[in-house]
Amino acid sequence: MVWCGAVQSFLFEYDTPRIVLIRSRKVGLVNRGVQLAILAYVIGWVFVWEKGYQETDSVVSSVTTKVKGVTLTNTSSLGARVWDVADYVIPPQEENSVFVMTNMVFTLNQTQGQCPELPDDKTECSKNNSCVPGYVSTHSNGIQTGKCVNYNDSIKTCEVFAWCPVEDDYHVPKPAFLQGAENFTILVKNNIWYPKFNFTKRNILPTINSTYLKNCIYDSKTDPFCPIFRLGKIVEAAGQNFQEMAVEGGVMGLQINWDCNLDRAASYCVPKYSFRRLDNKDTAHTVSPGYNFRFAKYYKDSSGVESRTLVKAYGIRFDIIVFGKAGKFDVIPTMINIGSGLALFGVATVLCDLVVLNCMKKKYYYREKKYKYVEDYEMRGELDLSVLSR
Amino acid sequence: MVWCGAVQSFLFEYDTPRIVLIRSRKVGLVNRGVQLAILAYVIGWVFVWEKGYQETDSVVSSVTTKVKGVTLTNTSSLGARVWDVADYVIPPQEENSVFVMTNMVFTLNQTQGQCPELPDDKTECSKNNSCVPGYVSTHSNGIQTGKCVNYNDSIKTCEVFAWCPVEDDYHVPKPAFLQGAENFTILVKNNIWYPKFNFTKRNILPTINSTYLKNCIYDSKTDPFCPIFRLGKIVEAAGQNFQEMAVEGGVMGLQINWDCNLDRAASYCVPKYSFRRLDNKDTAHTVSPGYNFRFAKYYKDSSGVESRTLVKAYGIRFDIIVFGKAGKFDVIPTMINIGSGLALFGVATVLCDLVVLNCMKKKYYYREKKYKYVEDYEMRGELDLSVLSR
Amino acid sequence: MVWCGAVQSFLFEYDTPRIVLIRSRKVGLVNRGVQLAILAYVIGWVFVWEKGYQETDSVVSSVTTKVKGVTLTNTSSLGARVWDVADYVIPPQEENSVFVMTNMVFTLNQTQGQCPELPDDKTECSKNNSCVPGYVSTHSNGIQTGKCVNYNDSIKTCEVFAWCPVEDDYHVPKPAFLQGAENFTILVKNNIWYPKFNFTKRNILPTINSTYLKNCIYDSKTDPFCPIFRLGKIVEAAGQNFQEMAVEGGVMGLQINWDCNLDRAASYCVPKYSFRRLDNKDTAHTVSPGYNFRFAKYYKDSSGVESRTLVKAYGIRFDIIVFGKAGKFDVIPTMINIGSGLALFGVATVLCDLVVLNCMKKKYYYREKKYKYVEDYEMRGELDLSVLSR
Repeated sequence: MVWCGAVQSFLFEYDTPRIVLIRSRKVGLVNRGVQLAILAYVIGWVFVWEKGYQETDSVVSSVTTKVKGVTLTNTSSLGARVWDVADYVIPPQEENSVFVMTNMVFTLNQTQGQCPELPDDKTECSKNNSCVPGYVSTHSNGIQTGKCVNYNDSIKTCEVFAWCPVEDDYHVPKPAFLQGAENFTILVKNNIWYPKFNFTKRNILPTINSTYLKNCIYDSKTDPFCPIFRLGKIVEAAGQNFQEMAVEGGVMGLQINWDCNLDRAASYCVPKYSFRRLDNKDTAHTVSPGYNFRFAKYYKDSSGVESRTLVKAYGIRFDIIVFGKAGKFDVIPTMINIGSGLALFGVATVLCDLVVLNCMKKKYYYREKKYKYVEDYEMRGELDLSVLSR
Repeated sequence: MVWCGAVQSFLFEYDTPRIVLIRSRKVGLVNRGVQLAILAYVIGWVFVWEKGYQETDSVVSSVTTKVKGVTLTNTSSLGARVWDVADYVIPPQEENSVFVMTNMVFTLNQTQGQCPELPDDKTECSKNNSCVPGYVSTHSNGIQTGKCVNYNDSIKTCEVFAWCPVEDDYHVPKPAFLQGAENFTILVKNNIWYPKFNFTKRNILPTINSTYLKNCIYDSKTDPFCPIFRLGKIVEAAGQNFQEMAVEGGVMGLQINWDCNLDRAASYCVPKYSFRRLDNKDTAHTVSPGYNFRFAKYYKDSSGVESRTLVKAYGIRFDIIVFGKAGKFDVIPTMINIGSGLALFGVATVLCDLVVLNCMKKKYYYREKKYKYVEDYEMRGELDLSVLSR
Repeated sequence: MVWCGAVQSFLFEYDTPRIVLIRSRKVGLVNRGVQLAILAYVIGWVFVWEKGYQETDSVVSSVTTKVKGVTLTNTSSLGARVWDVADYVIPPQEENSVFVMTNMVFTLNQTQGQCPELPDDKTECSKNNSCVPGYVSTHSNGIQTGKCVNYNDSIKTCEVFAWCPVEDDYHVPKPAFLQGAENFTILVKNNIWYPKFNFTKRNILPTINSTYLKNCIYDSKTDPFCPIFRLGKIVEAAGQNFQEMAVEGGVMGLQINWDCNLDRAASYCVPKYSFRRLDNKDTAHTVSPGYNFRFAKYYKDSSGVESRTLVKAYGIRFDIIVFGKAGKFDVIPTMINIGSGLALFGVATVLCDLVVLNCMKKKYYYREKKYKYVEDYEMRGELDLSVLSR
């Protein structure tokens, strides 16, 4: 029974490579040295430093925000006016960001009708036939009627059918209309989740009590875990000037980093806050620098005629950007690293062989030891050899 | 020509390690055992279980929602009033979430002016000079004028310039104002995409017909693929009580899990819905528990004076959180795992060698077989040996 | 001192496997061939093609948008009317998406009161007792009072307490109300960040000057880096018809792909724009096809009675979807790939051994050379052998 024999020999035979042991300080040390280096890399770097034994997962997060603060403005057009959250946060709630209006250009009592367009190189005119009825450009406020009318005593511009009077946003208030916004506070509530590890945590740590929360303000040094931020501080921390930024608006990134090593206690997994300006600061390479948008409040008078107050709102949008990776021990990455680590050991032997068999003066001697030549067609040596090694 | 010879020998020589075959049941079995274990791990665990042969990609998603439902309220201040989508969904549309107002504190006919601040330990006063003109705190509703006026017969508070009368949100309606919201339904449309595999799918499965969609309500057992959810059921599924939650509001996570094995038919790639409460439930460790925000509706009377209705909206925000990983066969991860798997086989030999060469009683004998000692400086043995193995 | 000796031999001994060198063209070539294949795979595929030496990170992004354009409509109900950004972008700002209203069904002057429900199979009635007081279905506009009243001369329906008159959205304007939207432009500002490499970039490239930005329109051929998009072009690029889409609305994905090889200069890291329709086009498998939502503008007349204009807004929501992976050289993935590559070399030997030792006619001869049999209990040979190899 050949088959049976094969199985037997497969099961009960143990094959291990034959080794030449060369007693040579030089080579020996070189060999161990290389092996040590590889070992150091695998253990020290891959495992200890880069945590190669961990499986990672990226964060799933949910954010809610709440702004607090009131400020007073005093202008000829509006008179004394108080601004509170309902006035300057638009829209009233968003998912991962919050917009705080810091400056504005408002146009009161707009109604649908004809009026002169804002003067610029395209819209200025001398006589009617220089205006094309129905013409609209991307920058125009309405549809041209074809007439050429007085914008003021000196300038004539094409008449447009639009919300009249058309908005004149040439002069942006400076300093910003709502300078007081610098002292507003924003409370950020963040709930994160690592699905793979089913690990969930909030940025309001269990160690924090509510009395502390009522009064604290985030500070990277003194209060690194307070979720309430002073707008001025955020902008400052990003190396910007709030009052400057307030004029034309901008976008701030409030970054929450949740890098966690879940092999350690959950209490070590804490948010790291950082701040960054996200919009292009230098006005050279950008159209419509800063950040602004238009919205309107609609009114109807007793006669049912609709009018609106158009607001071009400049302000700072705070994007709460949550990111991070969690790592936890897992067999597979560990094995992969061990496996390829072992494979690297082969390198040691290969290197040393190169040295021993090529560079050393006694290389021929070593080669003889290492290699056993088998001539394919030289039967004599064959037999001879077979005799010897039996 | 040495060089040519080298090439030849490189090409036409095949080198394979010499092996000692030890016929020993013990060692043989141990050896095969270890190898088997490693094989089992590589095949069974890495490939079958963890799908180590797959490349993965994470999901890119887009969500739209639509809420339906009307409810009736009857209060002294507002009288009988019907609430429909346009009234209770604020803002009317969002990207990945939808807010349904369930409770509210409204302050009618606010106008800019002077009025007494809400009484609390900071704002209560006895005489004028206990109020600081221009003082504002984060919690105040306006800017103090410096006067001390009657809030009611018993209490005097500092006067503020603000939207008057100031909001009194001390008493939150209980039960919730819009209890009926429990029966509202939300339709979630989700479109996902795996860029790396250019695989796209919708949560409205092609197997579902529109008549079914018109009437179905999601149920984890009976209708697991119906994209229409009853608000009450969502909250319930997360182990919460809707009526309780409705009072102070909260944030619910509607999680859609798109884990897909793209080596199988696309029809197996289906969404898994789950529900989780995202905000901090216990009021101990949180400021402003639940979820609420303020917004205002602005009116103008015939004389042009602006007034507003301030609404502090409590409600439930439903965040649609889409996550998941798709896996598909790829050569590289496969090779990496095979490669490191092979490397692990080396472990078997190493282990057995340790046993054979150190623990067995005939270890010296085996060592002799495995190793061939080469003394570096002992020429006699050298020659002798070279003679032998020639 | 045994221990010391062990250390010495460990340090100063170099062990390298003994090799049989078989001079055989066939086997030699096979062996080199397999090795070459493996080498080619490791170098060519893993490293050059798939960049296996790189560590990857996924993108963190922030988006702002700005829509420009005005259009004119002329209807019996509203008369001539101009629509600008503040009218058709709802809400005025969002984080990663922007909604442009293209079509609408408006219901003017709604007030709270009783009126007949819209006729459908459920609400039509002949006499009062076929209406249930207080009944509400998901599709109803209000709460039934129980009366059965004339909807028009021919049809009677149940009366409801609701915002009256109830909205009749049966007839959707066709062609779309705001056809002109096709020519609107949208400016997309995108700021991305790869946290792991601390690499940040904007989609407005430094090479672009502002005069160009003022006038350019994105075109995949001529202006691939212009961040200003014509709505019509976006829809077209996705293989859709704008005017069709405008009627019932829809969701468009504006995808920005930031795949970057950070081993090259940062200037090579540029955005790739692509467009895709995200909502279910075929109306067969979907409820409420297209994309629409309801919102209301609230008014108060002199007597303080609140009325509203309900708008069912159909439109196109543009989701800006930013994705991508950045790769940069890193030691660990490199080593893992090298390691497992080396391990694969073992395969070559294994394969050839199979050939040599089983398939070749001189296999027994080769086996003899490769293997050295050690009988466990045959002392004679043992001694004999030990003698020989000493």
